[in-house]
Amino acid sequence: MKNDRSPRWIWYPDDLELYHALKQNFSRVERGMGWPAYWKSSSYHQRIALWREYVLEEPTSFTVYARGTGFVRVIEEELLPASEKDPWNIREIARTMERKETKHAFGEVVSCRPGKVTVVIHVGRIEALPAAFVAGDVICSDDGWLADDYGEAAVPAGSSPFFTDPEQDPAIWNYSEKQIDPIRIEEVPGGTLYEWETELTAELLINASEERLSEMIVYPGESRDEALDPEHCYLHYRPENGRTPCCAVRFAFIPGSPLDVAAVYKYVDHPGNAHFSCDDPLLNRIWDVAAHTFRLCSGIFFTDGIKRDKWIWSGDAYQSFFVNRYLLADADIERRTLLALRGDDPVTTHINTIMDYSLLWILAVAEHVKSAGDMAFLRRSWPKMRSLIEFCEGRLDENGFLVGMERDWVYIDWAEIDKEGPAAGEQMLLAAAWRTMADLTEKLTGDRTEIPPDAAKSIYPVRKGTTEEAYRKAAKKWNERAVQLAEKIDRYYWSEETGAYIDSFVSGKKHVSRQTNILALRTGIADERKKKLIAENVLKNDLVPAIKTPYFQFYALDALAELGDLEAVLQTIKDYWGGMLGRGAVTFWEEFDPAVNGTAQYDMYGDRFGKSLCHAWAASPVYLIARYFIGLSLSEDPETDFILEPQLKFFRKLDCTLPVGMDGASVSLRYDGKTLEVSTEKCAGRIIIEKHTIMIENSAKIVWKSALEGCKMTIQKVIH
Amino acid sequence: MKNDRSPRWIWYPDDLELYHALKQNFSRVERGMGWPAYWKSSSYHQRIALWREYVLEEPTSFTVYARGTGFVRVIEEELLPASEKDPWNIREIARTMERKETKHAFGEVVSCRPGKVTVVIHVGRIEALPAAFVAGDVICSDDGWLADDYGEAAVPAGSSPFFTDPEQDPAIWNYSEKQIDPIRIEEVPGGTLYEWETELTAELLINASEERLSEMIVYPGESRDEALDPEHCYLHYRPENGRTPCCAVRFAFIPGSPLDVAAVYKYVDHPGNAHFSCDDPLLNRIWDVAAHTFRLCSGIFFTDGIKRDKWIWSGDAYQSFFVNRYLLADADIERRTLLALRGDDPVTTHINTIMDYSLLWILAVAEHVKSAGDMAFLRRSWPKMRSLIEFCEGRLDENGFLVGMERDWVYIDWAEIDKEGPAAGEQMLLAAAWRTMADLTEKLTGDRTEIPPDAAKSIYPVRKGTTEEAYRKAAKKWNERAVQLAEKIDRYYWSEETGAYIDSFVSGKKHVSRQTNILALRTGIADERKKKLIAENVLKNDLVPAIKTPYFQFYALDALAELGDLEAVLQTIKDYWGGMLGRGAVTFWEEFDPAVNGTAQYDMYGDRFGKSLCHAWAASPVYLIARYFIGLSLSEDPETDFILEPQLKFFRKLDCTLPVGMDGASVSLRYDGKTLEVSTEKCAGRIIIEKHTIMIENSAKIVWKSALEGCKMTIQKVIH
Repeated sequence: MKNDRSPRWIWYPDDLELYHALKQNFSRVERGMGWPAYWKSSSYHQRIALWREYVLEEPTSFTVYARGTGFVRVIEEELLPASEKDPWNIREIARTMERKETKHAFGEVVSCRPGKVTVVIHVGRIEALPAAFVAGDVICSDDGWLADDYGEAAVPAGSSPFFTDPEQDPAIWNYSEKQIDPIRIEEVPGGTLYEWETELTAELLINASEERLSEMIVYPGESRDEALDPEHCYLHYRPENGRTPCCAVRFAFIPGSPLDVAAVYKYVDHPGNAHFSCDDPLLNRIWDVAAHTFRLCSGIFFTDGIKRDKWIWSGDAYQSFFVNRYLLADADIERRTLLALRGDDPVTTHINTIMDYSLLWILAVAEHVKSAGDMAFLRRSWPKMRSLIEFCEGRLDENGFLVGMERDWVYIDWAEIDKEGPAAGEQMLLAAAWRTMADLTEKLTGDRTEIPPDAAKSIYPVRKGTTEEAYRKAAKKWNERAVQLAEKIDRYYWSEETGAYIDSFVSGKKHVSRQTNILALRTGIADERKKKLIAENVLKNDLVPAIKTPYFQFYALDALAELGDLEAVLQTIKDYWGGMLGRGAVTFWEEFDPAVNGTAQYDMYGDRFGKSLCHAWAASPVYLIARYFIGLSLSEDPETDFILEPQLKFFRKLDCTLPVGMDGASVSLRYDGKTLEVSTEKCAGRIIIEKHTIMIENSAKIVWKSALEGCKMTIQKVIH
Repeated sequence: MKNDRSPRWIWYPDDLELYHALKQNFSRVERGMGWPAYWKSSSYHQRIALWREYVLEEPTSFTVYARGTGFVRVIEEELLPASEKDPWNIREIARTMERKETKHAFGEVVSCRPGKVTVVIHVGRIEALPAAFVAGDVICSDDGWLADDYGEAAVPAGSSPFFTDPEQDPAIWNYSEKQIDPIRIEEVPGGTLYEWETELTAELLINASEERLSEMIVYPGESRDEALDPEHCYLHYRPENGRTPCCAVRFAFIPGSPLDVAAVYKYVDHPGNAHFSCDDPLLNRIWDVAAHTFRLCSGIFFTDGIKRDKWIWSGDAYQSFFVNRYLLADADIERRTLLALRGDDPVTTHINTIMDYSLLWILAVAEHVKSAGDMAFLRRSWPKMRSLIEFCEGRLDENGFLVGMERDWVYIDWAEIDKEGPAAGEQMLLAAAWRTMADLTEKLTGDRTEIPPDAAKSIYPVRKGTTEEAYRKAAKKWNERAVQLAEKIDRYYWSEETGAYIDSFVSGKKHVSRQTNILALRTGIADERKKKLIAENVLKNDLVPAIKTPYFQFYALDALAELGDLEAVLQTIKDYWGGMLGRGAVTFWEEFDPAVNGTAQYDMYGDRFGKSLCHAWAASPVYLIARYFIGLSLSEDPETDFILEPQLKFFRKLDCTLPVGMDGASVSLRYDGKTLEVSTEKCAGRIIIEKHTIMIENSAKIVWKSALEGCKMTIQKVIH
């Protein structure tokens, strides 16, 4: 993190995320009943100290605002210049000079003389996140503050770009709002149905008499059928002061005659400005609906859905990282989501109780580091990555395979997977997690900037940075484990007989699933020969049961695209997601079976309207189109930011802008069937078309023109 | 704990204590500024599940009330009788029969068919302790419920006799209340001074016009001087709706003309009915004021003082256990205090940050087990005792001595103690803590009732009980460590030259303090020869600096009494505590220096009214009188409950009743200078007078009559 001199609210690091994760995961409601998420929920620190030392050359003053009970302690020590080497001779003099210690209330203007000044803010707050804000010209809550919970050594304080106003309370998220009127108001038996153009996360604002409001029940629905079925409608609310809580709403049924009703759409602003448009209206609509679905499910955190569960799930979030890279390019939501999922040490259960979700969390950190180049986050999260992988390492069986213990959920996918004994898919993810730990830890060697510059002279020691040597040793160990495990997976799970990986070597059934083999492709376990065998024997083999969830559809299409079968990927996108559009979808669904029609298509988990019609894991077309058809990927070569390999044969027209990294860079493409223009903003890259490669610099534009024969392209000009 | 069939609120165990400890430790206020305690504050669990299985023979119904968001899941499985051995064949049938699973809102009446029923209550609450109450004839929240935080294995749910009404919220303590009018209302310059007969923990109720209330500031004081000094008064409040928060009050100054003001005394009911009265009015008054002081400082927890700090300190609490044994006989407050102090695992700092306070916590558990015979508490707290001692064991130096690490406070006493290198006193406490761990662990061998009877068939496993063998091994290890450390203490710290233990062997100063030598006596480190040398060279040696705090005064007088010098003990009680009475004390003080007079006597920590005038550690005369002059102690012999060895030579009259243990038993004494009557209720004991020993049975009375010569006593009669 750069040292930023503008003041903001500060707190114990990770606590904003833990506190709001509690709120998020406790926010689900089903037919009037709360349904807090059923996994271990880490708390925030209720008693903290925040402090910083200054050496003042001029008098100054400051004011501390806080959320919680407490006070400000100011320790002033007069300083005299000493030697040239240590002109303020701080340590020596502090020991001998008289100290002046004063206490101040929050909100009080505190004045300081020149000299050494230590400001310690004591805050306690039981019911919500304790936090402080320091306003002042010199002494202010910018980047150099430390936080202490009286347990661990002090650590740099946490902050967020969303909390920079002293009037705020970091326990209350200030959502952006937009009032949206219904597009249709329809009188139906018993009442009125209000319909919006699309689905929203909104409070409903109802203008009615107090008498009518006092008896009113509002039924918001994701479908018309749901809103019109008060008995089975997933949500219902009694409005308070003419307002419902924020909920998923596209339709709303309210008994009685029509009223003045509006939706107050509540959302979190994201930086992304991606857009995509091509000559195929269906593909354009799929992109737009997927993007809208994804934005709705990306609030403070990546959640699974907006009606249900409204929870933060690690596997779901992992997929959101891929869509985010090409849509919102929001590094902050990735950090918040990772911290919320991971919770506090010690690790006593898998994330969301799911074994694979622990491993995917580690892979998600790598995706974040890749997208955002966020070494600061990697550094501060490394201890939590280590304790999570060590928790997993404590659950290996005698062969060194990761097994589900009592209360662990071995999920992988909702599918027929043989999970007897150690499941193959989990071992593949473990090998990937170990390799990721090794790679990321290797990145940290040479990086020693753990102690923030302004905190080095703190009255308490900063958490000791792990040494380069320790990082290196750890990386080596994890790498060795990854290699050994990969060999063992091949030995125990590869079946030459079926030409595929089997799910379990314990049951003796030699069951082959798409899931296990897709994971073998995804995690790099399968070599080139095996990849071809898997493609033939599993992916293109109708005897192997098909994928049923959009969750694994993502991995399946990603694997298929990596194998080069883009035609099949595009066809599936158009059939499957297009199929939902054919049913009038304005957001993409948790599950879609083209064979099911009518109200039955909203049924899931044995609940007539149990299915979520706005689900993040259905937004993958954004990723698939951007990654494989626009062909944009981030470069690992330090000289360039991206590689662009557009598959122009699929388009006759193209107009799109996609983010590159998460610092506001972007690349734009325009194509009219003959001419391709590529322009960059704040990034440089490599463009590959038909085996031609050309470099494009920062803020440059390149125009290619296709030759008449065989769609060959030639460079026309490069404009800086 | 016995299985109690009456319903009460239930929660995750220890969470009531952790939650209210946060409130208690954050309740201190100083001149309008909050001052939350400056140590690690453990949180409660915000997401819990509470459940229990039943096998119903009749249909039944129940209702769940909860504090928090959530729902009730009911799983019904029909049962058919099977073999005689396992008439309901639960496990087998459960696997094959159809399950019926339903969800219910809190407050809903739930009906169940006969068969196996599992009730799972899901509750989440961020801002306060989540809890549930189940009302029903058969299915109700009594003793068999389990609690789960999704992290650890399930454990028996927590409850309290204070929360048995479904209308309550366990996050809000229902104090008993008594309205008390001032005994004097005095017009003084600028306003009115209200005076109560004694000091109280009270809200002030002020009957005044809204206009006057809106501008009013109330100054409660522990002394007249304090209340009349608005600038320096420790507390001041703006009343809300004519009421101040609960605070320490004996005097109150309110600007303006006299008003109708009352104190609403708020307190926690304790079971004790001890009383003491003798022929010496001074000693009677000392007992009464000490008892009143102690009651005021014993709310939900043992705290240090009622104006300041209002915090739960381990060393202070340890002393309170001794007074409690003879006064309130309240086992519940001991349990609450121990749990609040200990906090959550993992242990990352010493209790209250103080090294000796961690060790005293372990000794306090032993005192609780001794007083209350509370094996259930010992069993459930044993893992936390072990993790605390292991934390200490992680901080030993190369010699095996416990040393203060960065941020540890080596306190012992406010006195000149040479703390260079490992402090002698800490090693003595460590030896005592190890011996205590060994003794208490030994007690657990043979005890296997970890799993509550109704929970054994739970859907989740109960925390595995530590095996007898493991207990035995641990006890042996700690005992060996205690013996080895005691030898080493003698080797490193005993100075034959000075005939005393020195504070430090590192500094070379051979400094001798009363504190170190008193701890050597108290912890049994000193043998008989050394005891005599210490008595002579330290305790009765005016060259060794005197004790200045009532805290160590307690240990000093206790040691002196153990050495048999009761005359000196009595004289000190009368001089020191009598001296405070001479200054008009209605409660005993944190510190008392007879040489200081006027307002200066209220000064402490450089704060004109910083001294607490109602401090628990000044209540020790209750213990000293009961233990050494009435001569009552608890018996370790299983045949008898107590030993009574009254020191009649100090009394000409005596009328007192003292608790024996903490189950409502008591022993009473009446003495008129000639005849001594001793009667028992719910306990039996051994009476020793002048080398005569006689057993007294339960609910019996024994009358002794002194012979005319030499005060010899003879038994007159024994009445059953």
